[in-house]
Amino acid sequence: MQLLQDRIRAEGRVLPGNIIKVDGFLNHRVDTALMREMAKEFAKHFNTEGVTAVLTVEASGIALATITAEELGVPLLFAKKAKSDNIEGGLYRSEIYSYTYKKAVTLIMAKDWLGPEDKVLIVDDFLANGEALRGLVEIVEQSGAELIGMGVAVEKGFQPGGAKLREQGVDLYSLAIIEKADENGFVFRYGV
Amino acid sequence: MQLLQDRIRAEGRVLPGNIIKVDGFLNHRVDTALMREMAKEFAKHFNTEGVTAVLTVEASGIALATITAEELGVPLLFAKKAKSDNIEGGLYRSEIYSYTYKKAVTLIMAKDWLGPEDKVLIVDDFLANGEALRGLVEIVEQSGAELIGMGVAVEKGFQPGGAKLREQGVDLYSLAIIEKADENGFVFRYGV
Repeated sequence: MQLLQDRIRAEGRVLPGNIIKVDGFLNHRVDTALMREMAKEFAKHFNTEGVTAVLTVEASGIALATITAEELGVPLLFAKKAKSDNIEGGLYRSEIYSYTYKKAVTLIMAKDWLGPEDKVLIVDDFLANGEALRGLVEIVEQSGAELIGMGVAVEKGFQPGGAKLREQGVDLYSLAIIEKADENGFVFRYGV
Repeated sequence: MQLLQDRIRAEGRVLPGNIIKVDGFLNHRVDTALMREMAKEFAKHFNTEGVTAVLTVEASGIALATITAEELGVPLLFAKKAKSDNIEGGLYRSEIYSYTYKKAVTLIMAKDWLGPEDKVLIVDDFLANGEALRGLVEIVEQSGAELIGMGVAVEKGFQPGGAKLREQGVDLYSLAIIEKADENGFVFRYGV
């Protein structure tokens, strides 16, 4: 998506350790108008007929997923990282490794809100190692719902998450795939 | 707000320990159309002229705050709970006590995104002890920005957060204030 790639070129920064900072418009300060454009792009790309929910994981994916859910006229579901005592039994669970927190994390989702009758679009802001998204796919599988696809804003194409999800058969659509990021700037897959 | 109170009456549940569950429409599965109505109510209630940002804290407030920010045509900012190494220096910080996690938590916000030139509306989904919202007010104070008000979806009126914030002079507008919640249902302040 040209709009997003231009924005990454204009405002993205690269920190040591291949950390890509796009927190001025994507995941700390969030440009809501840009989120709407990305949501429209997902709505156009995927066959969203009959979709019953958009699914993401807390925290930074919630903004984009909320706007996408509203765009599709369906509820937003977000899996939580287990630590609260506010969630009783009846949960789908998936164990993932969080590279951000450097430890195993359990994603949880109340069974009440997802079942075999559902058709789900997964949305997230960022895809690198793909652990969080793998966890969401597992939760969808546990629920018996149909996964129609996965929309991601920024994929780090030089990390393995995207390839693994595509091999697994997930219809993954990333609006910007960064192949390389260094002091010379950003190189995107497909050359755009 | 009648719409929200009706929804709490219809779908809210009360768990032992005064835990109020509204996670079917507010903070696990999120009714995005309801979020939009609440955002419009905030836009009507507050004098939002010149507002430059909506501020919330991860995670569950992000959905409502995102829609409110889009409604006002401004960016969404969200304070993070410190644990990631993805955020370098230049931070506002506020120490709060998390009743959910039962421990002290540091809220952080990059100085890049908030300064004396800003006019901020704080938005969150839930107000009970008010620690997270007190932390956000502190961050706004540190930044020198102007706080124009605070919009909350559900306030637990029988817990001290709301009273403390109002005493502090915050223009706090809660769309539903629950005075009592038990096996007989919900009682709202102002009798609506």
